[in-house]
Amino acid sequence: MLTEEKVIEALKKVNDPELDKSIVELGMVRDVKVENGKVSFTLALTTLACPLKDTIIGNARQALLALDGVEAVEISLREMTPEEKERIWPKQQQKQRKPGVAAHLNHIERVIAVMSGKGGVGKSSVAAMLATALRRQGKRVGVLDADITGPSIPKMFGLHEPPPLGPVGILPAETSTGIRVMSINLLLPSEDEAVIWRGPLISGAIQQFWGDVVWGDLDVLVVDLPPGTSDASLTVMQSLPLNGVLLVTSPQDLAGMVVRKAAKMSQHLNVSVVGVVENMSYLTCPKCGERIEVFGPSQAMRTANQLGVPMLAQLPLDPDLARRCDAGEVELYSNDLFDALATKVMERLPETKSVPIFGK
Amino acid sequence: MLTEEKVIEALKKVNDPELDKSIVELGMVRDVKVENGKVSFTLALTTLACPLKDTIIGNARQALLALDGVEAVEISLREMTPEEKERIWPKQQQKQRKPGVAAHLNHIERVIAVMSGKGGVGKSSVAAMLATALRRQGKRVGVLDADITGPSIPKMFGLHEPPPLGPVGILPAETSTGIRVMSINLLLPSEDEAVIWRGPLISGAIQQFWGDVVWGDLDVLVVDLPPGTSDASLTVMQSLPLNGVLLVTSPQDLAGMVVRKAAKMSQHLNVSVVGVVENMSYLTCPKCGERIEVFGPSQAMRTANQLGVPMLAQLPLDPDLARRCDAGEVELYSNDLFDALATKVMERLPETKSVPIFGK
Repeated sequence: MLTEEKVIEALKKVNDPELDKSIVELGMVRDVKVENGKVSFTLALTTLACPLKDTIIGNARQALLALDGVEAVEISLREMTPEEKERIWPKQQQKQRKPGVAAHLNHIERVIAVMSGKGGVGKSSVAAMLATALRRQGKRVGVLDADITGPSIPKMFGLHEPPPLGPVGILPAETSTGIRVMSINLLLPSEDEAVIWRGPLISGAIQQFWGDVVWGDLDVLVVDLPPGTSDASLTVMQSLPLNGVLLVTSPQDLAGMVVRKAAKMSQHLNVSVVGVVENMSYLTCPKCGERIEVFGPSQAMRTANQLGVPMLAQLPLDPDLARRCDAGEVELYSNDLFDALATKVMERLPETKSVPIFGK
Repeated sequence: MLTEEKVIEALKKVNDPELDKSIVELGMVRDVKVENGKVSFTLALTTLACPLKDTIIGNARQALLALDGVEAVEISLREMTPEEKERIWPKQQQKQRKPGVAAHLNHIERVIAVMSGKGGVGKSSVAAMLATALRRQGKRVGVLDADITGPSIPKMFGLHEPPPLGPVGILPAETSTGIRVMSINLLLPSEDEAVIWRGPLISGAIQQFWGDVVWGDLDVLVVDLPPGTSDASLTVMQSLPLNGVLLVTSPQDLAGMVVRKAAKMSQHLNVSVVGVVENMSYLTCPKCGERIEVFGPSQAMRTANQLGVPMLAQLPLDPDLARRCDAGEVELYSNDLFDALATKVMERLPETKSVPIFGK
């Protein structure tokens, strides 16, 4: 006969992947009830934002359904009190966290870096919209903001709270549609504060965002690179396993020149370029409908041809997107062009990843 | 009586400031002629682009007019042949150049850094137009392109030739209106080539552009900073004697946030902020004349107030400026707003310079 003891016995085999201990032993299983083949219990998590909670829930459900007589499983969630957390994960231990442990728990299918070389061509908004479009297509998506001195990703998604610290790493913030985000701006006392760091600290922060963040299971991680081909870009290309790079340019020939530099860098470091996106291609006059080429005629096709890669999209300058980004509502903006872009990017993204030179 | 010997005797006291030797001894004085109180000679320079040539000419003219019987002085210029150059300045010696020597020959009245924190707000075009406007006002102007990984200054001015190497340093390139320019892009084999350098090399290049470039006498040196608050900005603020920083922003609140980071950095490093310029404020529809706020309503006044500095200009998005920049004709673009900006900047630029922490 199905008893509460049997349920607990079955749940003893389910581990919290972060702490690598049984959820029963960790005191995470409460209020177990068995009623006419229906099992219910409350799962007490260290934080409800835990990206690994779906894994725990899935494993628990599976373990219970395997029991004789179980027809339905109902799991409620609640967050532990600070005292409960302290018991399973003492403060002292928090400080002894070994770097890079989180990376071993993460399963990230694809990593794509959005790069432009030049600043202000709308790289971050393309990265944010790419993530949003992929999320709408049902993908599990993360955004790693590698622009340490000019981070704009959290503001675009309306994220302002510091991310919670889990037992083995930092938990990413989560947007309203469920995109996981990590950025230095979430960790600063004020979003206006300057990060006046030289290269090695910049590189260290990016490596931590990869190795010490509990991303959990992701279909795609979008990495938003800063302008330039110096430390941040080098670290991302050398120490993250990238499937490819998406280049963002603007119609200005000047932007094209700097983007070609970024493409050269990808070549030198053996990272594939998936394609080129031209942003700010034109603006439609809201009064008379005139198509205005604000930054001159398009050069993107020429740039793409020179690099031997496809041009994946030509995106207009849209005051509405700028407004949405400022208001932290980038996920409410919708444009078919971005959906088409997301599909093309996923089709073309190579399955093989680059091999990191150092670190993980 | 006035003789050619007396002329040569007088010119022996005139030195080439770079080589610190008499121009007669260096074989730079040719074809001396004396005729009815008029003295003429040809000055053979190592390069006609020499920024110190006006100093040499001025000193020679003064020395000759001090002679009894001299009523007029006529000096022709020509460039030495490679063999002549080799004689006064052997190749071997070129390699033994001590770093930072050029800085001692330069007299630079004011140094202003153009900074934005965020990329793509038109910082380089503002820097280029500020230099152009100051030059039109009769000032001797230089532009130091501190954006090592995304240099766009040479292209805007239509400069593509490598700068000549002088005996004590690199000579800046000169634009059609006489602005002296130094940028990494002038030194690369191809302008598309990527500079994949970590911080210390970036900093080294910037310090060389200050210490090893023969800027000569300048009223203003405009330093174009890259986006971000990392190595390049740190090096400029810590090792160049700056009179002030001009902040460039765009109407986006996102840009405002990153610009406030740049302002915080200036505060931390004790460099005065001269004011804020809002670029890309609006666009006028070429068909119907509608004023379109492409990046949303202006936030610059708010940003300026928050920082307690004046807002010096609101500049429109002008497709003509983008076209001129792409065509290398930024000096042919004219807009009263930039003249007014140049005047305001010079009025507000403090006379005192920041004290470099290291190097020179």
